[in-house]
Amino acid sequence: MKPRNQTVGPRLRIVLEPEIALGPGKADLLEGIDTTGSIAAAGRRLGMSYKRAWTLVEAMNGDFGSPLVHTTKGGRTYGGAALTPTGKEVLQLYRRMEARAGAAIRGEMKALRKLLTAISI
Amino acid sequence: MKPRNQTVGPRLRIVLEPEIALGPGKADLLEGIDTTGSIAAAGRRLGMSYKRAWTLVEAMNGDFGSPLVHTTKGGRTYGGAALTPTGKEVLQLYRRMEARAGAAIRGEMKALRKLLTAISI
Repeated sequence: MKPRNQTVGPRLRIVLEPEIALGPGKADLLEGIDTTGSIAAAGRRLGMSYKRAWTLVEAMNGDFGSPLVHTTKGGRTYGGAALTPTGKEVLQLYRRMEARAGAAIRGEMKALRKLLTAISI
Repeated sequence: MKPRNQTVGPRLRIVLEPEIALGPGKADLLEGIDTTGSIAAAGRRLGMSYKRAWTLVEAMNGDFGSPLVHTTKGGRTYGGAALTPTGKEVLQLYRRMEARAGAAIRGEMKALRKLLTAISI
């Protein structure tokens, strides 16, 4: 996984049902699959092990009423992958939530950062 | 720690500077200290080890320009603890961010939950 807590700003984790959550890792993975057409390539971009990427995809496919990621034949290793319409919708909703939440808390974010130790005056 | 991902809704984690983050765990700990007057008691309520609670308090005290938690004499084991004015301000800002973010994403949250497998019809 890429180092956490490097980029300043809010991180949103949505608990949809007990034990079913959607956060930055899954969203970035969906986005990577949409961009690269491959679960392995998407995982690599995020510094995620192949196993980890597959586990997250399988979890998401099971959590929602219909799968978010469709894999084409060739199996796990060589096949392609793409977001289903539901996958695209979930990713879009999550990105919209991030943007809305970020905008809603901009003032408090500034106020909190002012309370930090001055790091680079 | 209490089980994660049990309560439906957003979780907000704020990265204030690289490596400096404020999330639900620290906020709940601050709130517990404010309520109980004790780091140990606050940690216990959250199912957090004593060491973990102290580590979080020390991290927060070091991250901000002035400490968030003030401890009274008696040392780590028997002394009391209270939020400083900065600690109260940080907690209040965080709770306000949670509320604002939650309100801002209510529509998307409903839309996402509709896309889940029906769990209890």
